[in-house]
Amino acid sequence: MSDASPTTDIMDATYRALCEHGYADVTMKDIAAESEMSKAALHYHYDSKHDLLVSFLEDLLESFTDRLDAVDGDTPAERLHATVELFLATSPEGPDREFKTAVLELKAQGPYDDDVRERLAEFDRVLQRHVRTVLADGVESGAFRDDVDVDAAADFVVSSLNGVHTRSVATGRPVDEMRDALEQYLETTIVPPEGSR
Amino acid sequence: MSDASPTTDIMDATYRALCEHGYADVTMKDIAAESEMSKAALHYHYDSKHDLLVSFLEDLLESFTDRLDAVDGDTPAERLHATVELFLATSPEGPDREFKTAVLELKAQGPYDDDVRERLAEFDRVLQRHVRTVLADGVESGAFRDDVDVDAAADFVVSSLNGVHTRSVATGRPVDEMRDALEQYLETTIVPPEGSR
Repeated sequence: MSDASPTTDIMDATYRALCEHGYADVTMKDIAAESEMSKAALHYHYDSKHDLLVSFLEDLLESFTDRLDAVDGDTPAERLHATVELFLATSPEGPDREFKTAVLELKAQGPYDDDVRERLAEFDRVLQRHVRTVLADGVESGAFRDDVDVDAAADFVVSSLNGVHTRSVATGRPVDEMRDALEQYLETTIVPPEGSR
Repeated sequence: MSDASPTTDIMDATYRALCEHGYADVTMKDIAAESEMSKAALHYHYDSKHDLLVSFLEDLLESFTDRLDAVDGDTPAERLHATVELFLATSPEGPDREFKTAVLELKAQGPYDDDVRERLAEFDRVLQRHVRTVLADGVESGAFRDDVDVDAAADFVVSSLNGVHTRSVATGRPVDEMRDALEQYLETTIVPPEGSR
């Protein structure tokens, strides 16, 4: 027995079951099998797979927000880099790959499921707000070009991060290559040229 | 009766059935119901839903490639704009929205289905090659900044286009807003500032 709370245990079990079975096929039974509780006990906490997955998304959002808040770096450029790394962190062979697939399946549920869509929209807003703050800090301190439109750029960065995730799942192309292209582009378009400061 | 070929009829029927039922739930029966043939006749042409959907993807890829080749514009900037419009074209109320959801569902199948993943990877390469050509034309003719790294920039543009698609499905946010941010960012980072030419 671990000393984790029931909620933590359920969330960890949901993560593992999603990696193992994918979003479409995962069942309450699969999640119970990965946890320390019976299917009946799981149903005591959550009425349905839908309710459990919405709670899981909320838990994920909370942890994602905490990790964004903890993004560290001496300069805005370092914090932007750390944000990109945080969003796209992946081990090609690890459970991350399966989990990213499950997340993309969940994104495709947006139009069908209001609760899921609302949580995904909140993820999107939290990330965009964070990127916007980093960009605005950089523009204000002179670390970034003063002609960067921080709203459009933040939106664009969030789109590209989402796109790298989607493309890696859809095509199997390694995240690293696409992330490097993204970082190189940001570097040349946001950071002022050498000697201009 | 239309005078369309059986293949065109089946592809059109597949499009409509995907919009109506989504990728996960669509059946051969649904597709037959949208076409002018019986389910038995459909099975004569395709062994399974999987085979039919792979043919559908190939058909879509051919038509996408033709439309990319036909992208028009007097300048590289106009051709880049037309490419963005082509990829993101959408009517918020029309069947496009349902179809884009089905495409995202298909993308989430990439890791599970080699045939689907190969076609999606080919889509990705075709688009990236096209964007790279437009960017290279622009750099060579002086319409775009001479310090644009066309490989990294093409990769980045394809990521952002994919991301706008994913975000619009996942969060319900209108494509237009995100497309405008993307175009604005491209405008300021690729096109040289006024008077510098």
